[in-house]
Amino acid sequence: MDRERTGHLLPRLEKTLPSQHYFDPDHHRRELHAIWYRSWLCVGRVEEVAQSRDYKVVEVGDQGILVTRDLEGRLRAFHNTCRHRGSLLCSGSQGRFRGGSIVCPYHGWTYSLTGEWLGARHQLPAAEFRKSDHSLHAVAVGEWAGSIFVNLLGADAPPLHATLGEIPARFANWRLEALRVGKRLDLDLACNWKVFWENFSECFHCPGVHPELCRIVPVYGRGLMEEEDDPELAPDADRSGAPLAPGAVTWSLDGTSRLPPLPGLGAAERRLGHSFAVVLPSLFVIAHVDYVRTMRLLPRGAESTGLVVEWLFEPETLARRDFDLEHASALGRLVVEQDARACELVQRGLHCIRHEHGVLVPQEYAVHEFQQWVLSQLSQGG
Amino acid sequence: MDRERTGHLLPRLEKTLPSQHYFDPDHHRRELHAIWYRSWLCVGRVEEVAQSRDYKVVEVGDQGILVTRDLEGRLRAFHNTCRHRGSLLCSGSQGRFRGGSIVCPYHGWTYSLTGEWLGARHQLPAAEFRKSDHSLHAVAVGEWAGSIFVNLLGADAPPLHATLGEIPARFANWRLEALRVGKRLDLDLACNWKVFWENFSECFHCPGVHPELCRIVPVYGRGLMEEEDDPELAPDADRSGAPLAPGAVTWSLDGTSRLPPLPGLGAAERRLGHSFAVVLPSLFVIAHVDYVRTMRLLPRGAESTGLVVEWLFEPETLARRDFDLEHASALGRLVVEQDARACELVQRGLHCIRHEHGVLVPQEYAVHEFQQWVLSQLSQGG
Amino acid sequence: MDRERTGHLLPRLEKTLPSQHYFDPDHHRRELHAIWYRSWLCVGRVEEVAQSRDYKVVEVGDQGILVTRDLEGRLRAFHNTCRHRGSLLCSGSQGRFRGGSIVCPYHGWTYSLTGEWLGARHQLPAAEFRKSDHSLHAVAVGEWAGSIFVNLLGADAPPLHATLGEIPARFANWRLEALRVGKRLDLDLACNWKVFWENFSECFHCPGVHPELCRIVPVYGRGLMEEEDDPELAPDADRSGAPLAPGAVTWSLDGTSRLPPLPGLGAAERRLGHSFAVVLPSLFVIAHVDYVRTMRLLPRGAESTGLVVEWLFEPETLARRDFDLEHASALGRLVVEQDARACELVQRGLHCIRHEHGVLVPQEYAVHEFQQWVLSQLSQGG
Repeated sequence: MDRERTGHLLPRLEKTLPSQHYFDPDHHRRELHAIWYRSWLCVGRVEEVAQSRDYKVVEVGDQGILVTRDLEGRLRAFHNTCRHRGSLLCSGSQGRFRGGSIVCPYHGWTYSLTGEWLGARHQLPAAEFRKSDHSLHAVAVGEWAGSIFVNLLGADAPPLHATLGEIPARFANWRLEALRVGKRLDLDLACNWKVFWENFSECFHCPGVHPELCRIVPVYGRGLMEEEDDPELAPDADRSGAPLAPGAVTWSLDGTSRLPPLPGLGAAERRLGHSFAVVLPSLFVIAHVDYVRTMRLLPRGAESTGLVVEWLFEPETLARRDFDLEHASALGRLVVEQDARACELVQRGLHCIRHEHGVLVPQEYAVHEFQQWVLSQLSQGG
Repeated sequence: MDRERTGHLLPRLEKTLPSQHYFDPDHHRRELHAIWYRSWLCVGRVEEVAQSRDYKVVEVGDQGILVTRDLEGRLRAFHNTCRHRGSLLCSGSQGRFRGGSIVCPYHGWTYSLTGEWLGARHQLPAAEFRKSDHSLHAVAVGEWAGSIFVNLLGADAPPLHATLGEIPARFANWRLEALRVGKRLDLDLACNWKVFWENFSECFHCPGVHPELCRIVPVYGRGLMEEEDDPELAPDADRSGAPLAPGAVTWSLDGTSRLPPLPGLGAAERRLGHSFAVVLPSLFVIAHVDYVRTMRLLPRGAESTGLVVEWLFEPETLARRDFDLEHASALGRLVVEQDARACELVQRGLHCIRHEHGVLVPQEYAVHEFQQWVLSQLSQGG
Repeated sequence: MDRERTGHLLPRLEKTLPSQHYFDPDHHRRELHAIWYRSWLCVGRVEEVAQSRDYKVVEVGDQGILVTRDLEGRLRAFHNTCRHRGSLLCSGSQGRFRGGSIVCPYHGWTYSLTGEWLGARHQLPAAEFRKSDHSLHAVAVGEWAGSIFVNLLGADAPPLHATLGEIPARFANWRLEALRVGKRLDLDLACNWKVFWENFSECFHCPGVHPELCRIVPVYGRGLMEEEDDPELAPDADRSGAPLAPGAVTWSLDGTSRLPPLPGLGAAERRLGHSFAVVLPSLFVIAHVDYVRTMRLLPRGAESTGLVVEWLFEPETLARRDFDLEHASALGRLVVEQDARACELVQRGLHCIRHEHGVLVPQEYAVHEFQQWVLSQLSQGG
């Protein structure tokens, strides 16, 4: 698989991260605090919280986060914990606050959908009790491309657009916010979250692991992410990127599409056949001419990662009688399963006491870049 | 729910214990040693070890304790571990020492029912072997109200009556030692043991969690443990305690009783309809006019607590043909299940990284008192 | 049960190891590194890796070890981890490298069956990449008696024969390397690995735990490993070792044998009826006149040990129509199950906070010797 190109072939062998960073529980806790509890994280689609008062609950590491939509229709997110005695506010994974407020099931402390303390049934007055001291612990929330993002730093979070950078402009033609989920796959990967990203940061494994994908994207079959990574490419060559095989128009097992093309795409976007976006540490988007696939991950433990894969389509396409979901999703599903298996083999192998670290070969430049990002986050947020 | 009244409305908001005290395994180990391995603990009914040579095994934290009755009929308790090589002495949960001695299943080291080393089949003589060095590790054992209490301090344990204080006198009319178990419920609560006690130390949660109970005890429906907790109560008011609703005589779903009243109760005890006793950290008793319910708990882990609920009746009542156990126990069972669910929600919510502690409102005075007791035990026994 | 006699009755009571050494996870990690990752370990029979290119995978603590046979027919062993990014090389428990090389399933890094880096499909050249830096992490491998031994010290391992000492000469007449596995039992013992060895180092437990075995070996029924351990034995007595009961010729439930005797045994070996070998920390051999039983163990965790019991026979015997496996194996299976239960009781009992250590009685001299060996390994390798 692939990610946006920002690096070059590595000029020398580089060491990977220490093996212990992939399974030591204490190190994992450090990464939760330095990375996951400080970054913008994709936690779902806005269609899951479509109406005011709808909510969903997500688990980020060991933190339960409640995402809802207030009475004015704005997304809101809070820690799913009452300020009184710490009870969980919502025990299910989704629902609707029918009364228009959040009522703790334990003692009835009640909060507005914007998080303010409103009152508590039968609570005796206490002189020094200030409502403003007991608002829900707010989590920052944002939206891009129909996806919901949260940041546990709350008011201290940087703006979401600073994290997204040039991605929204680059994907503007896809009108991602108009697409809807046609298929969703929930996976529990028995690996550290970094193993997942490292796998998605190089195509050196593609020839062995993804033979079907390599038929659709020939450069992957040479273990490269892009033609430009080929050191034998002539400077004036007419090759670039990772073009689809002759006759292929999208990622499907036979390269054909049975869906109408997404409107609004330019000729260059149609020709590419795939555009990628990475929003570390939680989101990966692959946009094709006829559908878009997103993968979002959240750590469950040092050696366990939850992965949600979603296939997005135009609502009109989803409504068609002849909509062929299987044809559109089969290759992606196969690739995900192949990657999952590879990631789990790495996780098991990393426990070797003599494998203190591995090495990166020239075409694994984006793995190196990812690992440098991880280390910089650790040194800033640790 | 409730506990004996020893405090008053809190004059100010108080912080709860730090959230980590409810799930950190190291802190839990400190509490085991400072509290559970130093306190008198209720571990069963004497009827379970009715005859000389009967035994039962209980698990206190990670300690297996063997309770038996010696040949003179006295209760005895020991660590369930052989002094030789550490084998478990009894692997089941109850039984009878038919030979009148405790024989280790491994090498046959044999102990009297008072714990003295008696001998070992085929053991070669060793000059410096002294029998008195190899007695079983004794656990202090005592009895009140037909319940068995143990204290892992053994010979260093304070007298049980010092722990019980005024409770035996207060409950004398119930003749609890004459009652027998008519129903037993074993629950595994996914919460720290302190969450259980805190829940039982206030009735602020009653209106939302226990609507059925609040119909029988109206003051609970106002979130108060007693009328005296109502700051608007006139000084000369004719209200006190937590009286049953008009027409109600006991805790049952409809407030009626289908059992003969316990003999020996005074008019005041009959009028109250419930009398409570707390023996921290393991026992809670609710005595009614027609039956008594006990709840005893033992920690299994930082986030797991074993709870045994028993309903006690007069033997004559148990023997009656028209004995209606369901009518007598349904409300108690419902309340226990409601409390269990509430406790488990608190446990999950406490993991929130921003919820360093919660707050206590005025009517949660007994929660505060409990937490102060925990802290004092930690500072003494830590 | 028994082990080779190297000690004498203990002149005084000795303390056992501290109880925490049997369940503390940190101590267990120390033992893995000081003992299991530094010793020669029996991990299977050569018949499991019979041909060049066959392989099997074993787990030693948390280390996956790959045992194979190179193209010249020599046994080889490696950590089951690729030098590139740490992937597991082989995910199954056994198989054959059909291509004659070891190919990592992730990026195709390819190694010879002697562990040299051979190449990688599509890898871009890197000037400083040296093949010799990327050989598989070698594990030392050796062979005795048809059993495979590995040592994770690799090139730093002492010679296997130094570990085996006088055992090969003593067992020469059995021609163990010619025998084949007729029955295999895989057990998961809920105990620390040392509890297993301590149980196998004394026969004080035999009268109570192994009544059937004691009928075949009467001295065991007196709690002794050998006649010489009996302090009342006259100096000129005609008793020695642990002779079989009159009429018994082998370890079977009735003492009889339904198998032809192993050829090559001398009169003394036939008379003994059992010869023992211990190769700490992983192998125990009991050789009889008509079959041989081996027990090999590997730690899975502080309180979990994997045990493989194998019964070895002459190939000609295995091929006989009237071969009575049940008769030959029933007593051994029973003894193993009895020991397993005893070991698991010890493990549970050792958690008692007051049982800081146990004591050893005079006839437990070999337990003491084993514990001194463990302590010396810890002080050398810790």
